[in-house]
Amino acid sequence: MKNLTNTIQNQIILTGDRATGPLHLGHYVGSLQQRVELQKHNDQTILVADMQGLTDNATNPSKVSSNILNVVADYLAVGIEPTQTTICLQSQLPALSEITMYYSNLVTIARLERNPTVKAEIVSKGFQRSIPAGFLTYPISQAADITAFNASLVPVGDDQLPMIEQTNEIVRKINSLAGKKVLTECQPLLSKSSRLPSTDGKTKMSKTMGNTINLGSSPKQISAAIKSMYTDPMHLKVNDPGRVEGNVVFTYLDAFHPDASYVDKLKQHYRAGGLGDGETKRILEECLQEILKPIRQERSKLLSEPNYLLRILQQGSETARQKTERALNDIKNVFGLNLFKC
Amino acid sequence: MKNLTNTIQNQIILTGDRATGPLHLGHYVGSLQQRVELQKHNDQTILVADMQGLTDNATNPSKVSSNILNVVADYLAVGIEPTQTTICLQSQLPALSEITMYYSNLVTIARLERNPTVKAEIVSKGFQRSIPAGFLTYPISQAADITAFNASLVPVGDDQLPMIEQTNEIVRKINSLAGKKVLTECQPLLSKSSRLPSTDGKTKMSKTMGNTINLGSSPKQISAAIKSMYTDPMHLKVNDPGRVEGNVVFTYLDAFHPDASYVDKLKQHYRAGGLGDGETKRILEECLQEILKPIRQERSKLLSEPNYLLRILQQGSETARQKTERALNDIKNVFGLNLFKC
Repeated sequence: MKNLTNTIQNQIILTGDRATGPLHLGHYVGSLQQRVELQKHNDQTILVADMQGLTDNATNPSKVSSNILNVVADYLAVGIEPTQTTICLQSQLPALSEITMYYSNLVTIARLERNPTVKAEIVSKGFQRSIPAGFLTYPISQAADITAFNASLVPVGDDQLPMIEQTNEIVRKINSLAGKKVLTECQPLLSKSSRLPSTDGKTKMSKTMGNTINLGSSPKQISAAIKSMYTDPMHLKVNDPGRVEGNVVFTYLDAFHPDASYVDKLKQHYRAGGLGDGETKRILEECLQEILKPIRQERSKLLSEPNYLLRILQQGSETARQKTERALNDIKNVFGLNLFKC
Repeated sequence: MKNLTNTIQNQIILTGDRATGPLHLGHYVGSLQQRVELQKHNDQTILVADMQGLTDNATNPSKVSSNILNVVADYLAVGIEPTQTTICLQSQLPALSEITMYYSNLVTIARLERNPTVKAEIVSKGFQRSIPAGFLTYPISQAADITAFNASLVPVGDDQLPMIEQTNEIVRKINSLAGKKVLTECQPLLSKSSRLPSTDGKTKMSKTMGNTINLGSSPKQISAAIKSMYTDPMHLKVNDPGRVEGNVVFTYLDAFHPDASYVDKLKQHYRAGGLGDGETKRILEECLQEILKPIRQERSKLLSEPNYLLRILQQGSETARQKTERALNDIKNVFGLNLFKC
């Protein structure tokens, strides 16, 4: 485990994943390892975002529903501890929807259309003019999630910084309406490791593209994925000098091999010529098989006990429900809508 | 009371008002009288739409919160019976927000922008490009309201027919996703009385324009509003022939005077010449003072007992909460999201 820090303490952290597929090595390097560290000294909540998963999958909802427990098993298998981290399900928290409705009145359509992340996603998903309303407005829903937990720190990739900006704009509007500080602005926690490339080295990792190694991948799947991995297309003979930059095998070795000086020596050898792709791939496979074996076994054991996973999610959602109801109450107060409680 | 029918029976009816001001004679003629009749033989719910009221008043929320009890008092004062009609508060029904979130994924932004009612309102409110997201998407929220109560009949003005269309489009999408009938399409109940004009005869009735007679208006306010009422600008001398069409005094006499044949005689006299505006206004004032006196007194008595009004609203909201939670449950089933209950 590299590039992690233990200096972050006493923060309220909200993080999560859309439940649209099992998690893969990109998640492991980009966020899961960090969460395992962060849970030790912070109040961390992980939101399984099933409702957000529907914003672009409403006509194929089983893609979401069938992955909820997969994602929870992924969390536990990598070492997220339900005793240290609250794992909860978005659709079990009505306050998140209610807060979203209140915030929707404070954000214009033009502002949403300017969001660079959403803009890029609209292009990549080929939505053009048929953007579902729920998709264009999901930054409002994310702001509801973040503030409902009163999060001070939100781990994000750099492409998600506009979400933090949008959230803090809403926070300032609510506080200005209230004439006092009701909500707290959050800070982004940028991932220190750079984004892991897909195995083909070209596109974003995507389950449907078949260019990922999932946490639950079988030894055969891991082996096949590494064999087809993008290296240096000019490195035709073993004795040719090879390029390390953009060579996915080396990027993965950097991310996963426990011995950095050994990887440095491999790089020198590869650059000089005389080290074949077959050998670098063999070394990477040995390393990844070793890392993924206990995770896969634990994951598989967990998935054979769905009631246990449901109980974890239910208990976490109950804790989260109390927190989010408190935030909703504060926000309804700002709008003068706490006449009584049903 | 005119133009009402007792033939509508055994329907589930949802109706309501944005809580953005006290109700006026336009509401009385256009919907309140009808509701008093409908409650006798139907399952009627009236939703006090505080959240929808915020879609264009978020930065001035007291306009909504301060009017909630006014509207409830208006209902009771005109004869809506809490024992026959469920009167409930939108912000007390979390299922409505949750259902809105699910539906948002089934409606495109382009579809919302084509809604003629919303288009017209965007122009009339001067929003241009700074339309709050909650305002553009309020037809989705209305569809959530209607279907959450499983309404079969929705009283609307003809300008609101696009809302019914939008709702039924969503109903068909949900049923198609489910592969069975989960939700029921609703029918509009068009008001039989034509829209009451404002006292100035020009613009839509609006509290801020000062061109309405509210149910709680004082005798002096009623008198002043009628004195300034638009008549026939060419009817300069009493003996001149006058025009009845577009003459607001006659429109109000048609709507409120109990003796239609007497009003017909007045019209003949006015057309022929010899009947002054002072006299027609005196007759209208006598009639309206008589109608509004008991309503005003009852309304004032009710507003002196806010706890009673709150109790009505709370009990109605509790009943409504059970109904809307059932609908939410059905909709979550369609998306496979009923793993457990918190």
